[in-house]
Amino acid sequence: PDQQLRNFFSLNHLDRASEKRKDKDWLQAKISDETSQFLLLSELKPFVLPIKDKTSKWRYRLCWLDHNKISSHLTSDTVILFLGIDHSSSQSLFAIDVSGKEESKFKDLQPEGSFMVPFPGSLQMEPSDAGIFAEARSMMDWLERYKFCATCGSSTDITEGGHKRVCRNQECKSNKGIHNTAYPRTDPSVIMLVISADGKRCLLGRKKQFPAKMWSCLAGFMEPGESIEDTVRREVEEESGVKVGRVDYHSSQPWPFPASLMLGTIAYAKTEDIKVDEDEMEDAQWFRRPEIVQMLTHQHPQGLYIPPEQAIAHQIIKSWVRNTASSNL
Amino acid sequence: PDQQLRNFFSLNHLDRASEKRKDKDWLQAKISDETSQFLLLSELKPFVLPIKDKTSKWRYRLCWLDHNKISSHLTSDTVILFLGIDHSSSQSLFAIDVSGKEESKFKDLQPEGSFMVPFPGSLQMEPSDAGIFAEARSMMDWLERYKFCATCGSSTDITEGGHKRVCRNQECKSNKGIHNTAYPRTDPSVIMLVISADGKRCLLGRKKQFPAKMWSCLAGFMEPGESIEDTVRREVEEESGVKVGRVDYHSSQPWPFPASLMLGTIAYAKTEDIKVDEDEMEDAQWFRRPEIVQMLTHQHPQGLYIPPEQAIAHQIIKSWVRNTASSNL
Ligand SMILES: Nc1ncnc2c1ncn2[C@@H]1O[C@H](COP(=O)(O)O)[C@@H](O)[C@H]1O
Ligand SMILES: Nc1ncnc2c1ncn2[C@@H]1O[C@H](COP(=O)(O)O)[C@@H](O)[C@H]1O
Ligand SMILES: [Mg+2]
Ligand SMILES: [Mg+2]
Ligand SMILES: [Mg+2]
Ligand SMILES: [Mg+2]
Ligand SMILES: [Mg+2]
Ligand SMILES: [Mg+2]
Ligand SMILES: [Zn+2]
Ligand SMILES: [Zn+2]
Repeated sequence: PDQQLRNFFSLNHLDRASEKRKDKDWLQAKISDETSQFLLLSELKPFVLPIKDKTSKWRYRLCWLDHNKISSHLTSDTVILFLGIDHSSSQSLFAIDVSGKEESKFKDLQPEGSFMVPFPGSLQMEPSDAGIFAEARSMMDWLERYKFCATCGSSTDITEGGHKRVCRNQECKSNKGIHNTAYPRTDPSVIMLVISADGKRCLLGRKKQFPAKMWSCLAGFMEPGESIEDTVRREVEEESGVKVGRVDYHSSQPWPFPASLMLGTIAYAKTEDIKVDEDEMEDAQWFRRPEIVQMLTHQHPQGLYIPPEQAIAHQIIKSWVRNTASSNL
Repeated sequence: PDQQLRNFFSLNHLDRASEKRKDKDWLQAKISDETSQFLLLSELKPFVLPIKDKTSKWRYRLCWLDHNKISSHLTSDTVILFLGIDHSSSQSLFAIDVSGKEESKFKDLQPEGSFMVPFPGSLQMEPSDAGIFAEARSMMDWLERYKFCATCGSSTDITEGGHKRVCRNQECKSNKGIHNTAYPRTDPSVIMLVISADGKRCLLGRKKQFPAKMWSCLAGFMEPGESIEDTVRREVEEESGVKVGRVDYHSSQPWPFPASLMLGTIAYAKTEDIKVDEDEMEDAQWFRRPEIVQMLTHQHPQGLYIPPEQAIAHQIIKSWVRNTASSNL
């Protein structure tokens, strides 16, 4: 019964050790520990190795380097992020930011290694590494983009192995009471497959930036004061003009570009007429189940397709197709 | 079929008009429109009226004031937040920040009005007003706490009726590409009722700050790179030592103190032994269903109780009690 769908980017088996990482001495000891392993990130590109096994579905894995190899690259201002403990190997894993350094220099450490442009490359990463990459990329982006205190504009210091920032201005109210400016940010967004009232069709859209012939679920960021279900209703109406009633949760997926949490749902339409939001969308249309099956299996006569299995949109669409398999749609 | 649980703080029927609010002229016209209505917030306390109807379950409603009444309080630096359009009355609703002004002065506008300390007062607010308050409070907190650009430390300007900030430094990379520093922040957190492997007990905890005798679900913030289900497993293990397998989504709730999105779940334990996280929790214990029923109905012999119905914790616990009603637990 605990077999649940685990979306791509969420297979991270590390123990984040959120208590231990608060302890500066423990962290320092782990950074210098000869068993600890380091992932390099240059401008958010991870240092990866090719997977040569031709039977593997995946093309890349993360390249881990031990303290010996990277110590000459550590300076007092290098950003070191604690990722977690891998209990299977008893190793502590870190990511370090090497942005600005000459990327080719790191070839000396591992001749087969390279810095990979993460999108769409990370979709070809071995899934349990992709989960670690998701943590590393979203955290490193936050460390890079949130250097200043949003409350007073002062500089901040990194603590807790990269999982918190503290304003240097002691008078700043970010140093008192309950608030969120010190912590990494995660943006909840909804993504939904809208089903027609007769149950026979689903609504897909094309954002302007999509590759030609790709269609996907509608999606949008949550706003303050909304429930998941309300955001689904608002975004579907904004983007397509269709009104939605019931909304059922499907699964969730971290999407580290830069820090989204995708909340996947199936939504039930109360109306049919489509009015596309021309600012965001190129088009939105109802598709019958047989056509969706063609799109899912790359057998569509006009070559239309949906995102790959690594995307939660694919999983939601596949669920609907499966759950309607025995009906005569 | 579209009858779904709507948690407190999520009954906001306003049209947020996310396209229209980008149009400065439209906004300016609405601000000066004599039909528009304004909610005052002083240090995040809403200006409210008492509900005198003794048959009502609720004690407060929001006090709306029209442009005439508040115009003398508007200065060039007053923060004006567009909340949305109420289509039932064709009015545009706004919140304005009057922090720092003498609160008693506003009594002249409405002698029965008062600024209410929002917690726990807002739990006594008429639910559809509480939904609008949730939007207003979390947005106003963001406008107040995120005045500076986190990327470069410069000042920012408010745009889109308060729903976006733009860095004044034109060279700043927050003015290019995809990122999130410009947008209001919502912090996804999980809250979970953990059920024992035999299905007969559930796990409740006491945080150190809880009022005496109150027990509730465990809860915690999501971290970057996690799915909802993984956060539930991590937080339950951190706070109680119990290992969780399957996790089922229940419902979601905005919690505007300051900007949480509570993701309610039911989680199924794989182990029993409890090891309380002494830093965060005072205690955690398994409770049998009959005792939960006593706590839910305020009939517990020692006076133990759970949070009120306005809290998602209450709704999750009630669901479990209901769904196990016909079994002999
Ligand atoms: N956290 C965020 N990150 C990026 N864009 C956001 C965010 N919140 C709101 N937006 C806006 O949402 C638009 C995308 O629309 P949608 O995903 O449908 O909500 C972007 O172009 C932004 O204007
Ligand atoms: N966005 C956030 N807002 C407030 N506290 C946070 C946030 N993210 C992490 N925390 C930390 O989480 C602690 C509460 O623990 P928990 O709710 O169990 O995750 C707080 O005391 C903070 O140290
Ligand atoms: Mg969208
Ligand atoms: Mg949107
Ligand atoms: Mg949208
Ligand atoms: Mg936590
Ligand atoms: Mg907690
Ligand atoms: Mg916790
Ligand atoms: Zn500060
Ligand atoms: Zn800036």
